[in-house]
Amino acid sequence: MTPKYDVLGIGNAIVDVLTNVDDNFLNSEKLIKGSMQLVSEQEAHAIYNKLGQCIECSGGSAGNTIAGLASMGINTAYIGKVHDDQLGNVFRHDINALGAKFKTAPATSGPATAHCLVLVTPDAERTMCTYLGACVNLTVNDIDEETVRASKITYLEGYLWDPETAKAAFRKAIKIAHNAGNKVSLTLSDPFCVDRHRSEFLNLVRNDVDILFANEDEIKMLYGTDDLNEAVMQAQKDCDVTAITCGAKGCIVTDKNEIGHVQGRTVKNLVDTTGAGDLFAAGFLYGISKGKSLGECGAIGNLVAGEVITHMGARPDIDLKKFVKENS
Amino acid sequence: MTPKYDVLGIGNAIVDVLTNVDDNFLNSEKLIKGSMQLVSEQEAHAIYNKLGQCIECSGGSAGNTIAGLASMGINTAYIGKVHDDQLGNVFRHDINALGAKFKTAPATSGPATAHCLVLVTPDAERTMCTYLGACVNLTVNDIDEETVRASKITYLEGYLWDPETAKAAFRKAIKIAHNAGNKVSLTLSDPFCVDRHRSEFLNLVRNDVDILFANEDEIKMLYGTDDLNEAVMQAQKDCDVTAITCGAKGCIVTDKNEIGHVQGRTVKNLVDTTGAGDLFAAGFLYGISKGKSLGECGAIGNLVAGEVITHMGARPDIDLKKFVKENS
Repeated sequence: MTPKYDVLGIGNAIVDVLTNVDDNFLNSEKLIKGSMQLVSEQEAHAIYNKLGQCIECSGGSAGNTIAGLASMGINTAYIGKVHDDQLGNVFRHDINALGAKFKTAPATSGPATAHCLVLVTPDAERTMCTYLGACVNLTVNDIDEETVRASKITYLEGYLWDPETAKAAFRKAIKIAHNAGNKVSLTLSDPFCVDRHRSEFLNLVRNDVDILFANEDEIKMLYGTDDLNEAVMQAQKDCDVTAITCGAKGCIVTDKNEIGHVQGRTVKNLVDTTGAGDLFAAGFLYGISKGKSLGECGAIGNLVAGEVITHMGARPDIDLKKFVKENS
Repeated sequence: MTPKYDVLGIGNAIVDVLTNVDDNFLNSEKLIKGSMQLVSEQEAHAIYNKLGQCIECSGGSAGNTIAGLASMGINTAYIGKVHDDQLGNVFRHDINALGAKFKTAPATSGPATAHCLVLVTPDAERTMCTYLGACVNLTVNDIDEETVRASKITYLEGYLWDPETAKAAFRKAIKIAHNAGNKVSLTLSDPFCVDRHRSEFLNLVRNDVDILFANEDEIKMLYGTDDLNEAVMQAQKDCDVTAITCGAKGCIVTDKNEIGHVQGRTVKNLVDTTGAGDLFAAGFLYGISKGKSLGECGAIGNLVAGEVITHMGARPDIDLKKFVKENS
């Protein structure tokens, strides 16, 4: 069959609750700046009650990447679990509105739709507290075989390794994708997430992942080294394509033949780094889908990541198709 | 008793759902740019399904004004009806988070928390479609006598005239406020809202309102004239204090002794005019609460309105206390 989708994203379907905090708040709550921490419903509630006014915005790592790709005109689909509630409807609306196919049945019992408290400090860094809610109910039954077979690339977020049953769903998707001759892509998501699941992630990367995304901390954590070059070389050996984001410095990209560095773009008006990695992946996969060179893929990733950090929230707030056309 | 609150706001408790649209969309949906239109749940749903990605943010006209006042350090309270649901919790959290007292019991049956589809066109103008939801269940029982008596100014939004039972609640609040020797303030909200309730609004303004807020279209609609000066002079006769916003041109302010014009401030980076009138009222009432001159009140209103239109959403996203201190 001819693949119908360029990219299928599978991830934790989350609505972000964003607000500004100062560094003292992170310290008093014992939160590690820049990280994602899992919290219980009670813990989320206790932190929320200490926050100022917030805005709500659809999020979820793979959800953000798919939203970015859809905004660039790429054919996309998404699998993730919301509850049949108001925030679940918000998530569903927003990803559908951009043109992604999202048909996963919502949970009608159990916990509410997941939310993530995104705490943005004056340096624009984001620190996240995630209540997984309905995401814990994503199971193998939600992995629609037809959709996975119909997708040239299945893109998975490492965060999906946190809710227990999602792992099996994750593995099922990988198997279907590879059996259909399609590619599998993984983002390592967060250094603490890598730390929680390091040996399993290493197995995945060595055996199942064709296109790997990580940032510097995550790739070093994965390979248990402080030496970025060492980690990059190992990743090059393990995956066909690797893209390592290095913040403002840009990214390192590898395939089997080369290792390259793509200079970052200067971003004026840095507001909120939430979604920078997710949108980098969107830009990079856009390039892959369009048959661009490795360097071009990295450059588009840098460009698109540079847009999302100029405003609050992890979803693009402009037409990315037009933006990419005008800026690359 | 010594009033405990400087300003009590009573209004429709609404969560805004904001997105960008082009002018063609307004035309195809037969929406009048810059207006607020009431829609049924089904109509709201049909329009929402045609919108791109949105952000959710607490709103409601009086809610925005109270949020602005609370952000400026003014003692505030709020009365309005949400449902006991996720968006109701969002509304409650956000107004409480700024320090306003909001104790109105949520509805546990009947329609969901109200939402307003806020459609922002490239000229930064906002056009609104409001589904009143739980707001229709605000009744006289929700008007807590102690809170009204304890508030120096009771601020009411004209929009509250739309849900039927809220009118009685509105009248009860006016009676309690005046019996306690406190002031009553009204915003006319929207020219079409004025048109719907013109004779009743005229009676209110002539008999019950001490401080009146309106924009040019609303005040002309109220007095059935195309002549702004004529409308301003009538308003001066009817109310102790009047503030008429004139967009970028600033505002006209009156008391029994004078009519003045306060020049608008140049706003760079105009993004979304949602909440401009609400935050003008916040700035003006801040001035009143601090015993400032009429001209100073108008200038602070202009200043604060000028902040809220530089970003999406009708709530301030900075510390307004600091902002006012630094800029006035």
